[in-house]
Amino acid sequence: MSYVAPIKDMLFVMNELAGLNAVNALPGCEDATPETVQAVLEENAKFCSEVVAPLNVSGDREPSAWQDGKVTTSKGFREAFKAFGEAGWQGVQHPAEFGGQGLPKLVATPCIEMLNSANLSFALCPLLTDGAIEALMTAGTESQKQIYLEKFISGKWTGTMNLTEPQAGSDLALVRTRAVPQGDGTFRLFGTKIFITFGEHDMAENIVHLVLARTPEAPEGVKGISLFIVPKFLINADGNLGERNDVHCVSIEHKLGIKASPTAVLQFGDHGGALGTLVGEENRGLEYMFIMMNAARFAVGMQGVAIAERAYQKAVQYAKDRVQSRDLAGSAGAVPIIHQPDVRRMLMSMRSQTEAARALAYVTAAALDAAHHHPDQSTRKANQAFYEFMVPIVKGWSTEMSIDVASTGVQVHGGMGFIEETGAAQYYRDARILTIYEGTTAIQANDLVGRKTVRDGGATARAILAQVRRTEQELEAQTGGDLAAIRNQLAAASRALEQVVEYVVGNVKTDIKGVFAGSVPYLKLAGIVFGGWQMARAALAAQRLLDEGSGDASFYRAKIATARFFADHMLSQATGYRAAIVEGSSGVMALEEDQF
Amino acid sequence: MSYVAPIKDMLFVMNELAGLNAVNALPGCEDATPETVQAVLEENAKFCSEVVAPLNVSGDREPSAWQDGKVTTSKGFREAFKAFGEAGWQGVQHPAEFGGQGLPKLVATPCIEMLNSANLSFALCPLLTDGAIEALMTAGTESQKQIYLEKFISGKWTGTMNLTEPQAGSDLALVRTRAVPQGDGTFRLFGTKIFITFGEHDMAENIVHLVLARTPEAPEGVKGISLFIVPKFLINADGNLGERNDVHCVSIEHKLGIKASPTAVLQFGDHGGALGTLVGEENRGLEYMFIMMNAARFAVGMQGVAIAERAYQKAVQYAKDRVQSRDLAGSAGAVPIIHQPDVRRMLMSMRSQTEAARALAYVTAAALDAAHHHPDQSTRKANQAFYEFMVPIVKGWSTEMSIDVASTGVQVHGGMGFIEETGAAQYYRDARILTIYEGTTAIQANDLVGRKTVRDGGATARAILAQVRRTEQELEAQTGGDLAAIRNQLAAASRALEQVVEYVVGNVKTDIKGVFAGSVPYLKLAGIVFGGWQMARAALAAQRLLDEGSGDASFYRAKIATARFFADHMLSQATGYRAAIVEGSSGVMALEEDQF
Repeated sequence: MSYVAPIKDMLFVMNELAGLNAVNALPGCEDATPETVQAVLEENAKFCSEVVAPLNVSGDREPSAWQDGKVTTSKGFREAFKAFGEAGWQGVQHPAEFGGQGLPKLVATPCIEMLNSANLSFALCPLLTDGAIEALMTAGTESQKQIYLEKFISGKWTGTMNLTEPQAGSDLALVRTRAVPQGDGTFRLFGTKIFITFGEHDMAENIVHLVLARTPEAPEGVKGISLFIVPKFLINADGNLGERNDVHCVSIEHKLGIKASPTAVLQFGDHGGALGTLVGEENRGLEYMFIMMNAARFAVGMQGVAIAERAYQKAVQYAKDRVQSRDLAGSAGAVPIIHQPDVRRMLMSMRSQTEAARALAYVTAAALDAAHHHPDQSTRKANQAFYEFMVPIVKGWSTEMSIDVASTGVQVHGGMGFIEETGAAQYYRDARILTIYEGTTAIQANDLVGRKTVRDGGATARAILAQVRRTEQELEAQTGGDLAAIRNQLAAASRALEQVVEYVVGNVKTDIKGVFAGSVPYLKLAGIVFGGWQMARAALAAQRLLDEGSGDASFYRAKIATARFFADHMLSQATGYRAAIVEGSSGVMALEEDQF
Repeated sequence: MSYVAPIKDMLFVMNELAGLNAVNALPGCEDATPETVQAVLEENAKFCSEVVAPLNVSGDREPSAWQDGKVTTSKGFREAFKAFGEAGWQGVQHPAEFGGQGLPKLVATPCIEMLNSANLSFALCPLLTDGAIEALMTAGTESQKQIYLEKFISGKWTGTMNLTEPQAGSDLALVRTRAVPQGDGTFRLFGTKIFITFGEHDMAENIVHLVLARTPEAPEGVKGISLFIVPKFLINADGNLGERNDVHCVSIEHKLGIKASPTAVLQFGDHGGALGTLVGEENRGLEYMFIMMNAARFAVGMQGVAIAERAYQKAVQYAKDRVQSRDLAGSAGAVPIIHQPDVRRMLMSMRSQTEAARALAYVTAAALDAAHHHPDQSTRKANQAFYEFMVPIVKGWSTEMSIDVASTGVQVHGGMGFIEETGAAQYYRDARILTIYEGTTAIQANDLVGRKTVRDGGATARAILAQVRRTEQELEAQTGGDLAAIRNQLAAASRALEQVVEYVVGNVKTDIKGVFAGSVPYLKLAGIVFGGWQMARAALAAQRLLDEGSGDASFYRAKIATARFFADHMLSQATGYRAAIVEGSSGVMALEEDQF
């Protein structure tokens, strides 16, 4: 059941692919020296493995429980969260000014991965608090920052995101929660919010809800939505906690997975109105929420990487332990099933996809650091565009991949995988939420098509594809069958993606439904190509390090083999996706509603 | 929550693709007239929808429970199973001589589908009994047939398959259960069997275990395994039930899904030995078990089709009901999500794969009827070869597909899909067993490569591919964009499969691990190509019926559109699989064990 943080791969990706040195050289990132980073990762790994991971199975078996409006979290969660806050882990990426460690996003990212590998349910509480911090950093008043940020970063209080209502899920235009101004700068909120992760719990002194609502004169649709802070306990002028606010948890959901994480229905204003304050300007709530959501979406993408890694580790362990059947090449008796070619194929499929998604996410995190801190404006802009383009892919592709990987993990276990006691089934159940919350894969794909591809006429997509081509050229300059095979698959796949980008940009006006019918396949194709690109870069780096004769040769050779597997088994799917997108839209929309 | 049997599609497939008329013309199949078949299907649909389907959710919430060696099944199961037996549904495909209806496999197949769509857990009990009937029909003595078959067919007694032991799952060579001859023709059995579906329950008067075990002088490995009948209650000379036999259920498993179906650990012989009789000859147990397993594997393939159909129906209903977001082409307000292109894509993906897998399975069932009943020996032989080739594909591909479809069903529901109350999550959990029991997908793929492809040097595979080519020619003779697109995709995909078959046959001796590394991708590719072939045949038949102006034009047009979708979105994956198999084996086996 244990989790061992893959620090070697994390550091390889940070150093060789994401440019940790370059990030460390950015103004404001001076603290992220190689030594500090390694120490932070090792300390975090220790905390996650020893304190958080042991609560994963028990939390699934004894989920959070609701009674009379109160939620008791699973055994051990309170204590672990207290230790988490006290050790400073909530603050890794947040400003030192408010008690954080002020480290780059690139360094926070593996920490987020480890926490989620250890315990997806537990990690959701800090994930949401990160989002709240992000929102207040962007749009909060000085006073709001002073009141909340230090409390969030210390782990004393936690944050939530309140978007969804029964009639408003993917479509936030339908939000109906009302915010009535009280004339003193405060508002009273009335309405029902559902699917609120850690919307009620017993792990912190206060819970601070960030709530989307409409003021009385607000225009209809998404342009009339404002963002409010509504704390569970009001805050007195002296900063101490005051009265209980009129927001109450009326139930929590009985879910397929992430059972230790309470998913609350919150009722605002049933007893006179929940007191709240506006964040930023009226009617700009969705804009602020999107900043927070980009961060949260990236983090959910990391949840995909994290659960895939955990499922992979468990499958490897079982495959090494379980003795069954002879070796196909001959053996005296039965051997561990890791000898079986199909078990190998499954493990390599899990491993290669996890590594590719990790690499893509870390590179994206490094781009955000450069977007924030690089002295050159055009470099900042290019990195911001790269980051924004990749966020829906990191979120959508990594999470879709994680369901597949968790399912393969069950398969490696055979019949034992279907027995809950084994634990592999929990990953299969837990992972299933990841393609849904923080925007379904379709919502990510809409974002990729609309805001990220079509809005700039495909410019960012083409710029990234030009980078892919440079990697292809580097591969061409190398000898060796593996690198040549990787180059061939990457070249074919990137051409397929290029054609899809041109199809999307060229047809969105004349055939909007046809283009959007291919939006999710486009997202998956982009994930495969860019994930494969990072694996190709990884193979090049590994080959260079092998040639130099430095470091862990076995690790580098495994990296090249894993990149080769990804190329042959994943990049090879690209042309099929191209066909489905470019030629396959007519069948999608052909049926009338009553033909279903 | 309701289930509506897709009788229109079932009859279309039976009539237009599987040749119900030709089956009806076979000696012994004269009863299967179109009128009788339609009546049987409608009556079965009524029973499944009204009696069995309503127990699906409640069975999941209140699973079978074990206490003191007794298993109480979920509420309503006893009564429903009694009604099932009394209505004659256990006997659809079994001989009239023992109380069955004596109908062809082709007619039993939709009945099996309906029962499994209604309630996968419930349907497992009859599924296993079918297997026991099959085994005794093949290898039982006259006396055994007389004692057991009528009881099975009437639903008074049920059957089980006892293969797995803690150390012997996929590898039956490791079976250790002992059978000691008593000198009077009976044996006493000693050992532990696990994962025994409906190994103990309260739905029947007796439970008859078919058990793999070794006699004292038996050779090692699979050549020393014999098959025994071990009833829960011994049977007196007068046919009445006698003493309780020494086989006891010591626990049942806590599982991810199919929770209403009790999965038993059975202890044989802890109190002196479980009395049993030999089936057929000593040391030929595995051979008999394989006959039974071919039938059971086919039935599990149908479980895949069945759960996919149920998940599809639920997703369609939700997509029509749930109002959210505007239509992309413009609408006054929010519309049902079935208007959204990606929701359409998901529904079409579910629908097209389900229809393709159904068609392939029914065609395979018809081949078994011809293999059994056709007057011409070479026709019988060709049909037997077709059937045997297709069984691992029907089992492996349909079940892998069903997990994907059930997962897509959750996705269509968005956040509601993750809430257990909705019901979509149950299909996702239930489906997950299907690629594992009755031989994992890897075991099916081993069978496809070894017994079904390599043993005859690829002859059967090539003969079937020649049939595919004839369909391509028929498509060529047609006009219309959809049929042309289908032809192009089918031609490319069947060429890819052809190359894979030659690769498998040509390389299995020199590179056995490399070939088996591609065995599951080969199975999936075969499923896609042959499923796509049946969808192409369906499109041709629909076009012909449209041209004739007879029947339900809307249904035929939907069939063509669905076939087109399958071609563009599924057949298009074939070349990727080809690459993964033919070029992708080196990465699979490259790592040393300690590099994982």
